[in-house]
Amino acid sequence: MTATIINIGDELLIGQVVNSNASVMSQMLTASGIGVNDVLVCGDTRDAILLSLQRALTDSDIVLITGGLGPTKDDVTKQVLCDYFGSELYENEEALANVRRIFAARGYELTEVNRRQAWVPRCCTMINNSVGTAPCMWFDLEGTDRRQVVVSMAGVPFEMEHLMRTEIVPRLQRQFQTGVILCKNILTQGIGESFLSDLVEPWELSLPEGLSVAYLPVSGMVKMRLTARGSDETSLRKRIDDAAAALRAVAGQYIVGEDCETLPELVAQRFAERQLTLATAESCTGGAIAAAVTALAGASAYYRGGVVAYSNEVKQAMLGVGADVLQQHGAVSEPVVRQMAEGARLRMGADYAVATSGVAGPGGGTAEKPVGTVWMALASPSGTIAQCKHYSGPRSQIVVRACNEIFAWLARSVR
Amino acid sequence: MTATIINIGDELLIGQVVNSNASVMSQMLTASGIGVNDVLVCGDTRDAILLSLQRALTDSDIVLITGGLGPTKDDVTKQVLCDYFGSELYENEEALANVRRIFAARGYELTEVNRRQAWVPRCCTMINNSVGTAPCMWFDLEGTDRRQVVVSMAGVPFEMEHLMRTEIVPRLQRQFQTGVILCKNILTQGIGESFLSDLVEPWELSLPEGLSVAYLPVSGMVKMRLTARGSDETSLRKRIDDAAAALRAVAGQYIVGEDCETLPELVAQRFAERQLTLATAESCTGGAIAAAVTALAGASAYYRGGVVAYSNEVKQAMLGVGADVLQQHGAVSEPVVRQMAEGARLRMGADYAVATSGVAGPGGGTAEKPVGTVWMALASPSGTIAQCKHYSGPRSQIVVRACNEIFAWLARSVR
Repeated sequence: MTATIINIGDELLIGQVVNSNASVMSQMLTASGIGVNDVLVCGDTRDAILLSLQRALTDSDIVLITGGLGPTKDDVTKQVLCDYFGSELYENEEALANVRRIFAARGYELTEVNRRQAWVPRCCTMINNSVGTAPCMWFDLEGTDRRQVVVSMAGVPFEMEHLMRTEIVPRLQRQFQTGVILCKNILTQGIGESFLSDLVEPWELSLPEGLSVAYLPVSGMVKMRLTARGSDETSLRKRIDDAAAALRAVAGQYIVGEDCETLPELVAQRFAERQLTLATAESCTGGAIAAAVTALAGASAYYRGGVVAYSNEVKQAMLGVGADVLQQHGAVSEPVVRQMAEGARLRMGADYAVATSGVAGPGGGTAEKPVGTVWMALASPSGTIAQCKHYSGPRSQIVVRACNEIFAWLARSVR
Repeated sequence: MTATIINIGDELLIGQVVNSNASVMSQMLTASGIGVNDVLVCGDTRDAILLSLQRALTDSDIVLITGGLGPTKDDVTKQVLCDYFGSELYENEEALANVRRIFAARGYELTEVNRRQAWVPRCCTMINNSVGTAPCMWFDLEGTDRRQVVVSMAGVPFEMEHLMRTEIVPRLQRQFQTGVILCKNILTQGIGESFLSDLVEPWELSLPEGLSVAYLPVSGMVKMRLTARGSDETSLRKRIDDAAAALRAVAGQYIVGEDCETLPELVAQRFAERQLTLATAESCTGGAIAAAVTALAGASAYYRGGVVAYSNEVKQAMLGVGADVLQQHGAVSEPVVRQMAEGARLRMGADYAVATSGVAGPGGGTAEKPVGTVWMALASPSGTIAQCKHYSGPRSQIVVRACNEIFAWLARSVR
């Protein structure tokens, strides 16, 4: 079972909008056992839409289209689909009732133009979009050799997501009998993708039928995703657990955690489970660690707070770093980063505290401390430890890598 | 002059990665006068790449390809291109020296597999990728009716961006003589896109030939981009300046700044010009303001530091917020946010300080202070002011909107 995603919209071709719809849809389809062949992004023109549709129907069983369903003349998707399937538009009662309801709730008058939202091709199954005015259209194509489906839905991200989750994915699963799919994430850190895949190659080659692994590298870490496909959930679960155990035996030292998506999520889980608290003291990461911690709902359960100690004066005043230590060793040094972590832990009353001080660049590097040098410290009830890392790449990469190192360090420290 | 973007990578088809490359590339091309016809995303397979390449060469003059250039067997882009153009691979000396340099800097041993990164098709122009190991390949196609270009580059976002900015866009501009293009950004805030476009419609209709405007909405603000195309820089400059002056006359109250890309950039400029300093005190934005400030190189010139005062204890200990005030008004309140800003300003010795305290959700909302309520304060030499905003949407949107409001407020306060 394979799908092609077509995202329609001029705004996607001038770089104004990042096409997050494609990744959300791909994730949902992949998790349902439907492989995505390709994603085609085109503008709001008849020719571009037809070309994309033809290619999609050559490639895939399922074609999911977003966008171009607004009431203005820019949006032509509905008319193009109607013509392509040789149908005609009619006013759908249920869709009209939905449009009326939404306009009434917003306190807007229903104009003739907006009423046109309720028109759909006669040959499609109208699927009501309860969170927006553009109805979803489902086209069944009964070919001689295979059955195909084309679905057109709104491009507004939360409308698309709602329709995919509540209507489209369940219908696809029924119609195409996609079977059972289980996934398991394993977060690794401290080893590059190619070295990791070399290390675990014998394990990977011995994976049983129906089990596959994907390597998902993000700055400074690699997420491994095990996927099992079949028909019986219990046996799939056992197969995936056995594979994870075998993986632990060969690459355990690089495995930071399992069953979550990101390192900050893993840290949040472990701190919550142990009822521990965290404080941060950041110089070169400039608040990026705090922002990643607090981006997750429920962070207040374990995160006390942090100091972004960008200037030396703030390191002294807010964290109690000694003026003499700064003078003697410089801000990017082991003694300073230790005092930062200890000051943060003490002053914010946390069990654990982490600190960073480095040269994020592009300026500020010296022969002794080049751009990419980052000192880090971790203060805990059992004492303070420090390490120095050297990163390459632009400022943003150095910050991201330092953040991931800190989160992996925290996750390893709180098992 | 039109382009097709092809992004290659299995990771893009399972939803693991949002395809930000497409939007960054589209933006750069659009700004250079090259329209993007379509974006094709496909997996790391020979057939999919060939199909995409064929469609792209039918559609466009310029084909830009990212991804699939790693040294592992998964990555096939280079071999597919080499075969498509009927060429053969050879070890390029300059590319090899670059790979060696990067491996040496990272302290890794150069394996035979990695050395293969330096192999490129004989028929292409190798463009050195100084920030990564995969060289960029430029193919010129001299057809009977038109000249076309195919460029293959690394998919790692910062490598792609570096290559596009320093090599590919300048070469495309020379080769296709895209003429003179001048852009001017105008940052507006406090008015939605559709209301803004209604307000300035007469101005927009009166724009002279060769001058166009794009509305680029990002959470809580709209960037307007004026683009002038022609051959004479002086007259284009005058035309764009006249249009900006006319725009100021109709929408001046919403214009926060001009000639920069983002609000944090604008704030950095103004603080640097005035030699003012800034401190931050964040509760609900959780370090996102600090992270946005420090994401820009040179932030240390004006940014002293910040406190992420997530818990009430940290608000008291680090910023001097009164326990009685917290008790009486709650953390999300005008008195607390004022004390946070004043405490940050005083303790970190800054001219200006901003503070946020709100309910980012999804939990924690009450009837009186629902999710999305954000109190903000701005303390300066002329006193402290506060305001309350109500945002809708998910946690991440509420944080982004609050950050943008803070940056717009700072930019307006330091003209």
